[in-house]
Amino acid sequence: MNGKNNSSTFEIGVVGLGLMGTSIIVSLLVSGHPVIGIAPLPSDMDGALDRIQSQMNHADEAGLLSENVDYYLKRLHLTEDYSKLKSCSLVQECVTEVIEIKTEVYLKISQNTESTAVIATNTSAIPISVLQENVNLPSRFIGIHWAEPAYMTRFLEVTKGALTDEKIANRVLSLARTWNKEPTYLKKDLRGFVTNRMLYAVYREMFAILENGEASMDDLDKAFRYDPGSWMTYMGLFKRMDQLGLSDFKEIFENIFPQLDNSQTVPTTMQAVVKVQGKGINNGKGLYNYTKEEAIKWEEAFKDFNHEIFHLAAQYPEINT
Amino acid sequence: MNGKNNSSTFEIGVVGLGLMGTSIIVSLLVSGHPVIGIAPLPSDMDGALDRIQSQMNHADEAGLLSENVDYYLKRLHLTEDYSKLKSCSLVQECVTEVIEIKTEVYLKISQNTESTAVIATNTSAIPISVLQENVNLPSRFIGIHWAEPAYMTRFLEVTKGALTDEKIANRVLSLARTWNKEPTYLKKDLRGFVTNRMLYAVYREMFAILENGEASMDDLDKAFRYDPGSWMTYMGLFKRMDQLGLSDFKEIFENIFPQLDNSQTVPTTMQAVVKVQGKGINNGKGLYNYTKEEAIKWEEAFKDFNHEIFHLAAQYPEINT
Repeated sequence: MNGKNNSSTFEIGVVGLGLMGTSIIVSLLVSGHPVIGIAPLPSDMDGALDRIQSQMNHADEAGLLSENVDYYLKRLHLTEDYSKLKSCSLVQECVTEVIEIKTEVYLKISQNTESTAVIATNTSAIPISVLQENVNLPSRFIGIHWAEPAYMTRFLEVTKGALTDEKIANRVLSLARTWNKEPTYLKKDLRGFVTNRMLYAVYREMFAILENGEASMDDLDKAFRYDPGSWMTYMGLFKRMDQLGLSDFKEIFENIFPQLDNSQTVPTTMQAVVKVQGKGINNGKGLYNYTKEEAIKWEEAFKDFNHEIFHLAAQYPEINT
Repeated sequence: MNGKNNSSTFEIGVVGLGLMGTSIIVSLLVSGHPVIGIAPLPSDMDGALDRIQSQMNHADEAGLLSENVDYYLKRLHLTEDYSKLKSCSLVQECVTEVIEIKTEVYLKISQNTESTAVIATNTSAIPISVLQENVNLPSRFIGIHWAEPAYMTRFLEVTKGALTDEKIANRVLSLARTWNKEPTYLKKDLRGFVTNRMLYAVYREMFAILENGEASMDDLDKAFRYDPGSWMTYMGLFKRMDQLGLSDFKEIFENIFPQLDNSQTVPTTMQAVVKVQGKGINNGKGLYNYTKEEAIKWEEAFKDFNHEIFHLAAQYPEINT
């Protein structure tokens, strides 16, 4: 991978054709890259092309394409054959979160690519530095963590492992900007990465509020939707503090920090859901319950919302920097 | 205050004509109420009407009005004379966060209203149960906490103090829905209230990440804008967990909770800002620095963003309930 990127000749491999993998493929195709999609298991091929087509149509409806859908699909090759990765300068892994399986995938990738090819993982659970230990030439290994739907969020988290070459990290950050992303750079290999880690702090607190009977689940969700939801797409939290004028924060931190929840254990509400094998909207049993119709309605409306928030966010990229 | 609300004859008092007070007045006028605005100090009159007019125009541009601006302004009476509150069924206090000052205001309100009038505070710092102790007939005292700009966010936090009559709380919740709000009900008098408390958990964690050198301030803000910012207006955090399918959360909580920051002290970054009397965009010195032009540009763009996110949020009120 070199500094100059001409996306039309810059071939990228994606290993793993699950929900996330196909969504990443669509994002890369939309950015003009030829893409080789690898199915690590034959069954991974099932439905992959259908899903990519449907996501492509979604991207088209949202006005993200400059050519027609077929133009992009012609630049995609789905296969089980790792040797097709040969001319890829970057290979993005997004297989299941099991170290042994990922390690095997990295071996196959490095056996079938140039030594200069960057290998990236989409993991959100395993430290980059741990995965890196099992990669041939670990300095070219890096975390590129996407959010769903990958082609329609500006979020991208780039994480440097202990052995990752900083130059590689910088190149990936530049490349990501050509994908219309606003990449975040995580300089150390923080457990839980950046947004997730911050969100876990909220999860801990909100389960505590719920379980203390102070507010209902629905009210906690509403409060977040209508308060932070009314400014978060415009500004992050440090900026929000500046906007509010900062004056009371020191005192509030002094008063509130000692009262925040510091639990280290899984909230009982969550344990109860796990016990009944709740999979949220996937099986209707979750923190809330859903009929099949409700789950569908809810996912459909989210697609519409995606369009809108993506375009809204795109109007305010620079004002904050 | 009775159960049936006809806003055109339901008079509401607002005591305190600062930024928040005028913004609340605009919200109540837009909802059709006649409003008595009380200036607790003569100087509170300065600029209050100008601000209300300008906020009214903002609401008008955003398409929130069914009549012209003058129609609403005719239903407003600004005065220093508490006796004008006589026929108000609800009086909202939004003066400075000093218990003694608030207590004095409550005394004047109760001396000038019927004993059935509800008295509400906009405090975000003092527990309702504490303020309530000094109110004549404390069962009709309640927290109604607004977010800025009050006429253009759906957020409203209703907090029951230890002595508040639950029937009063339910009436306020019903009333708030006629104001186009999605009120959150806080059943116990939680320090920091709901959203703030959840956000303080994030603040604590993000300052820790920053001060450990793991990610920059700008990157932390970007991550929040583009990840949670891409779904938060659509769904709260419990719903988000359900959407993600819940499967890995138990394990992640077990791993991450013990690693989250549990500090009880003010972060050093914040202490440094307090030391130089940083007031964020108000004086250009904050967590970030701002020229006067940048501060203005940034506030102007936020007004535009407000319109857009308000209307976007309004399209998805029911799907989640």
